[in-house]
Amino acid sequence: MRTVPLATLNATDKPDFVAELGDIYEHAPWVAEAVAGQRPFATLAALHGAMTAAVRAATREQRLTFIKGHPDLAGKAARAGDMTTDSKFEQASAGLDRLSEREFADFHRLNDSYKAKFGIPFIICVRRHTKDSILRLFERRLANDAATEETAALEEIFRITALRLDQRVDAPDQLKVHGRISTHILDPCSGVPAVGVTIELLELSANGDRRVIATAQTNQDGRTDHPLIGGRPVPIGCYELHFHMAAYFAATATPLAEPPFLEVVPVRFAVAEPEAHYHVPLLVTPWSYSTYRGS
Amino acid sequence: MRTVPLATLNATDKPDFVAELGDIYEHAPWVAEAVAGQRPFATLAALHGAMTAAVRAATREQRLTFIKGHPDLAGKAARAGDMTTDSKFEQASAGLDRLSEREFADFHRLNDSYKAKFGIPFIICVRRHTKDSILRLFERRLANDAATEETAALEEIFRITALRLDQRVDAPDQLKVHGRISTHILDPCSGVPAVGVTIELLELSANGDRRVIATAQTNQDGRTDHPLIGGRPVPIGCYELHFHMAAYFAATATPLAEPPFLEVVPVRFAVAEPEAHYHVPLLVTPWSYSTYRGS
Amino acid sequence: MRTVPLATLNATDKPDFVAELGDIYEHAPWVAEAVAGQRPFATLAALHGAMTAAVRAATREQRLTFIKGHPDLAGKAARAGDMTTDSKFEQASAGLDRLSEREFADFHRLNDSYKAKFGIPFIICVRRHTKDSILRLFERRLANDAATEETAALEEIFRITALRLDQRVDAPDQLKVHGRISTHILDPCSGVPAVGVTIELLELSANGDRRVIATAQTNQDGRTDHPLIGGRPVPIGCYELHFHMAAYFAATATPLAEPPFLEVVPVRFAVAEPEAHYHVPLLVTPWSYSTYRGS
Amino acid sequence: MRTVPLATLNATDKPDFVAELGDIYEHAPWVAEAVAGQRPFATLAALHGAMTAAVRAATREQRLTFIKGHPDLAGKAARAGDMTTDSKFEQASAGLDRLSEREFADFHRLNDSYKAKFGIPFIICVRRHTKDSILRLFERRLANDAATEETAALEEIFRITALRLDQRVDAPDQLKVHGRISTHILDPCSGVPAVGVTIELLELSANGDRRVIATAQTNQDGRTDHPLIGGRPVPIGCYELHFHMAAYFAATATPLAEPPFLEVVPVRFAVAEPEAHYHVPLLVTPWSYSTYRGS
Repeated sequence: MRTVPLATLNATDKPDFVAELGDIYEHAPWVAEAVAGQRPFATLAALHGAMTAAVRAATREQRLTFIKGHPDLAGKAARAGDMTTDSKFEQASAGLDRLSEREFADFHRLNDSYKAKFGIPFIICVRRHTKDSILRLFERRLANDAATEETAALEEIFRITALRLDQRVDAPDQLKVHGRISTHILDPCSGVPAVGVTIELLELSANGDRRVIATAQTNQDGRTDHPLIGGRPVPIGCYELHFHMAAYFAATATPLAEPPFLEVVPVRFAVAEPEAHYHVPLLVTPWSYSTYRGS
Repeated sequence: MRTVPLATLNATDKPDFVAELGDIYEHAPWVAEAVAGQRPFATLAALHGAMTAAVRAATREQRLTFIKGHPDLAGKAARAGDMTTDSKFEQASAGLDRLSEREFADFHRLNDSYKAKFGIPFIICVRRHTKDSILRLFERRLANDAATEETAALEEIFRITALRLDQRVDAPDQLKVHGRISTHILDPCSGVPAVGVTIELLELSANGDRRVIATAQTNQDGRTDHPLIGGRPVPIGCYELHFHMAAYFAATATPLAEPPFLEVVPVRFAVAEPEAHYHVPLLVTPWSYSTYRGS
Repeated sequence: MRTVPLATLNATDKPDFVAELGDIYEHAPWVAEAVAGQRPFATLAALHGAMTAAVRAATREQRLTFIKGHPDLAGKAARAGDMTTDSKFEQASAGLDRLSEREFADFHRLNDSYKAKFGIPFIICVRRHTKDSILRLFERRLANDAATEETAALEEIFRITALRLDQRVDAPDQLKVHGRISTHILDPCSGVPAVGVTIELLELSANGDRRVIATAQTNQDGRTDHPLIGGRPVPIGCYELHFHMAAYFAATATPLAEPPFLEVVPVRFAVAEPEAHYHVPLLVTPWSYSTYRGS
Repeated sequence: MRTVPLATLNATDKPDFVAELGDIYEHAPWVAEAVAGQRPFATLAALHGAMTAAVRAATREQRLTFIKGHPDLAGKAARAGDMTTDSKFEQASAGLDRLSEREFADFHRLNDSYKAKFGIPFIICVRRHTKDSILRLFERRLANDAATEETAALEEIFRITALRLDQRVDAPDQLKVHGRISTHILDPCSGVPAVGVTIELLELSANGDRRVIATAQTNQDGRTDHPLIGGRPVPIGCYELHFHMAAYFAATATPLAEPPFLEVVPVRFAVAEPEAHYHVPLLVTPWSYSTYRGS
């Protein structure tokens, strides 16, 4: 997706501004219209703040109409293709476009119950989630009262639109919508970083699925050149890092058992804060290792 | 299986002795016959030593006949039920009685190649192995020369018969044919052993299968009341210990993230020496852990 | 000191019994006299329990007279030699027989303040303490009220007499008056216990003194043949284990920096419970180590 | 000491250039003179390289005269004040200005032996050393032959002059003459960096002296705002980091024993490479810790 400089948005005429940002809020170009007159915005945070203020300043009826304009999660709109491009992309990120029949039925049931109880669709910023965490939150939020859910829906929409602005607009500041998973391998038998170790990052699902979502090799500093996940929220969920240690030790002529005591070291952990940095280093010898959440 | 005291074997008449131990060596009661006159045996080790010496003292032709009397691994004999009870039990222990069609075909092909090359069946002490390690060794041993394989076959037979004697005879000594997997969990935030933690031991296969083979809970000392594997060889293979830590920390009112950073801690390791003690402790906090092969 | 079997104490006549145990309670043979008629005692615990009950059953006046019969800590009695043999030995164990002039003055001042406030000498089971912990407790107990200190004095006396009985009487049971400091060294680069490592145990004082109180070498299991402290209470205080690792690694042909990153690894810890087991293992490589209170 | 920009040195006339850098090489302004005509120098490394080349290009006689112009280590010149300002400052850095009479005698004896054997003074870049490492190297180098020591003397002089240039000249590049000691404390019970922990860095001497050479507090990231040693070589020698953990845990309301198991955690290590980064982190709970050389 092409990015537009904040300076350009500040300088262009109002129709162009609305054309550029009208779809940041789902089917609600009136939000962009409402803030056009407040330009120039010094920062992306100021633009995002103005848009959220415009939504909060609208009448409750207007807000409800707007909320109701959002598609069902993994709903018929998703299957029929009747969503904005952003929504399609976002739902795919959490795997909602490849549900099993059973999971589709679960979502269908939850959507129906939620709409029956609150009169609005269930809204969640899917880019911060995995299928598992969405289902868990869905069940939990069904137990709330209507006022809580109207507030929750808005908060989630503001997260969604912050991520869309972050992708669309090239600005001097950042919206703190990104998290990170990184690692670092030290070999204390040699006293140096472990170089050339193959690492895989897997996403684990409650149903037993395990999907490799990143692979990398450690560099001269025992780190990966890029974070295993970075530049986006880290979906709330369960992960496993796989460190291919036996190949490393064999390459450094370390005597090993046959088969080696440690071949692949799996480190399983859950992410609870999508905007946080999860640094998960490994201190490893042929017969021991330790790991922790670093900083 | 009923055990017989060594003292009884020492005191009984020769036919009874041979009746008791004639099937220790597969289809070769002559081995028991050969040593009956050397009684009494002070230890099981002395009895085992006498029997291996009798085999080594036989003519090569006699030894080859004897070796050829052994069933194919996972072969037709296994399917047709034409094996001694011990052999059946032993082949089942490594999962050779529940092969997929493809694995059965692999074994069939290897058996044929091996017999074509060496004229004897492939013999291995299956109770020291998993399906994976058998296949790996099978391929490797196919590359040997005939003399090496005759020696290897005998060594494996002596391991098989040591295990059979260990099970059948109640003696003052032990044959050192058993290994162990044990663990110990310490909670250094509290400075005490972690009590009441659920632990699972899984056997992992190269084909992706994961089978829970033991479960236990830690006692007041942070250990399990019994080893996770004990009283038998630990099959050469790949294992994973699963420590259910989040439930433990929740029970001790430790503040946790939601979801907890560590829910189940998997520790994956391989066993190379079936008769060794694999003590694999865990030092664990809500945000870190370390593990090692202890002693 | 010679030990006497509990059976002998149970069988002998009353004067002999009192002759044997009359000095367990300082200048108070009446305690032994009071329990002689309750013989036989099945266990040492029963004997100790009977004696403490006799003290509790005495009149308060009798108890106060008895408490007042105890020597000052590090007082003139200590210097003049006017104490029972046990008291001398006990005060020496905490180093109270080799105080500097200044420390002697500190004890003198505290003794005077304590007696002026409570009318009894300060009583503490010195074998459970170091000079530092005695001084700390002395200051703290000075702030108590009289009733609390009468109770405290009795509790300490019962600890003193339990230790004396434990040393004097050979019985089937033990009084749980002993603690232990032990260690265990693992070398995870090799996957084995570290054998032949020299270990020193130092006692550290608040005034900067450091005194080696035990040395040992690790055996084939990476442990010391005997606990570094055992068979007696571990004095409350600060300790340092010194592990001479560079010599070990040099002996195993491990490449080391010059000078080695780790030469002597000091592990400093405090003991708070004299009757507890302090197991303090070390997992060490040439460039890292970890330690913890084990179990 | 005031710094002069490399650009200024490149632009000034030759006498000024020599006036500025004439004393970089001890009593040898001819080195600066020899390179003045090669200006401009793009980098400090180029300037340093030109000066070392000029020394190597001189006749052996000239080089020996130059080498002999250097003061004795901790010699009479030091006491009499007859050294260049740089030399005085450098010898003080390793504590050579505060030797005991006995150490002074040791140096005197070694100086005499060295001069008697080689005819030149013992030269070493003292800023890369502690008193202990100098004495150790002194004894070792005494065993060399004359050619080795002439080479060694030059190498040490080039290290000395690199450090002098680094301090005197403000250039776009750096000469890689600096090392670093840093740390990082993580509290895995809370899953966060340990904030506000007091840390001391001590230099330990073979004679038992322990001198605090830096103190710091950890910041919000569990690190110190500045390296404990930085911006200069880290003297080869033995160090101890003292982490005041009990105060930290008490401040975070962590339940502790009395006295706490860990009060001050000492981590002792040796520095072998003065230009390297020694990152020595601590992962610590109230009952355990681990440390390692990081990167």
